[in-house]
Amino acid sequence: MGGKFIVFEGVEGCGKTSQMRLCAEWLQSLGLSVVLTREPGGTELGVELRRLLLQKSADKPISEVTELLLYAADRAQHVAQELKPQLAQGKYVLCDRYIDSTIAYQGYGRGLDMSLIDQLNAIATGGLTSDITIWLDVDVEIGLARKRGENVGLDRIEQETITFHRLVQKGYADLAASSPSRIIRVDGSLSQEKVHKTIQDILSAFLTVDNQQLTANRQQR
Amino acid sequence: MGGKFIVFEGVEGCGKTSQMRLCAEWLQSLGLSVVLTREPGGTELGVELRRLLLQKSADKPISEVTELLLYAADRAQHVAQELKPQLAQGKYVLCDRYIDSTIAYQGYGRGLDMSLIDQLNAIATGGLTSDITIWLDVDVEIGLARKRGENVGLDRIEQETITFHRLVQKGYADLAASSPSRIIRVDGSLSQEKVHKTIQDILSAFLTVDNQQLTANRQQR
Repeated sequence: MGGKFIVFEGVEGCGKTSQMRLCAEWLQSLGLSVVLTREPGGTELGVELRRLLLQKSADKPISEVTELLLYAADRAQHVAQELKPQLAQGKYVLCDRYIDSTIAYQGYGRGLDMSLIDQLNAIATGGLTSDITIWLDVDVEIGLARKRGENVGLDRIEQETITFHRLVQKGYADLAASSPSRIIRVDGSLSQEKVHKTIQDILSAFLTVDNQQLTANRQQR
Repeated sequence: MGGKFIVFEGVEGCGKTSQMRLCAEWLQSLGLSVVLTREPGGTELGVELRRLLLQKSADKPISEVTELLLYAADRAQHVAQELKPQLAQGKYVLCDRYIDSTIAYQGYGRGLDMSLIDQLNAIATGGLTSDITIWLDVDVEIGLARKRGENVGLDRIEQETITFHRLVQKGYADLAASSPSRIIRVDGSLSQEKVHKTIQDILSAFLTVDNQQLTANRQQR
């Protein structure tokens, strides 16, 4: 089989959505079968959970442990219903956020117990890890300014304090430092084209074996 | 302070709802402040999770781990938002289902890993256990026949096989056997009045200290 699980991570406004779209177009142009998905919200159930997690004006706020469990529930369903079956079919699955978001947002951002997060990530994923994770690193202020520029209103997480988002950023930096072969930092403050080119280079190098297959595919066309 | 956390457990159609109502009326008649609640669905968020958990016709079934995580999320929110604050205010909280339901339904019924269930129960409750749990024991067939007699349609759990419900029943029996001071079996096949009288006797004995206070309350009125 040999699908690949490629995760995109980063703070709000880091450019994940645009870069995932460009990356998907590029991989498709190489003849690969690509799936774009996200967490939370990558399944029908997940869409409902995403709404509950991101809605702004809850009279009674969601407790931090509840939040963690809802993200885990979304992930468990996503892994079982989408990620594992798609990867088993050899798809290239590009996913907007995965376990590192939980570590960065709930662990670093909210200060929840890391061993609890690790436990829940293990339960929810059933051991499925990304083949590679691209961390789009932009300054928190730049990212949030981009989001505000979109003028679509900020969700519950985007409305958190700048201190919260700086802690999240620190989480990603620590993760990238401690897992340099799995999490690759990309400077997200460069132009969209430059960022895309960098991602192409990284994935081309990383997917060498598959790349040989890509070349074969290309020659056939 | 000094609230009491009283949980009602049992298979579908065991009579929890009617008995909780009678029990609440009785406790209120003694001058106590009583709260009736349930899992899943004891909070605003929980009502939404209950709907997701019990809806019947999902094209894509909820995975067993997802189900477990959603019950845990419902519980975490219920504990934080309702149970702990109400108990801290000295309320008598009567709750329809709690951790033993997860052990009986997901552990015995679905055969999910018990240590995983224990982990999630611990995470969700933050250590809050019932002061006493009343297990209304009725034959699975009688309970399901009662439910069908209500003619309101069966939810996703009620539609499970009879084998599933027998496993759940075995779960309750094992729990009552292993925690005889916390979980008290009541024969739920008797008349509503007899069951109610038995519950009164059990709670009166259990809440002796409080009972003295009740007597004082009564005399004041």
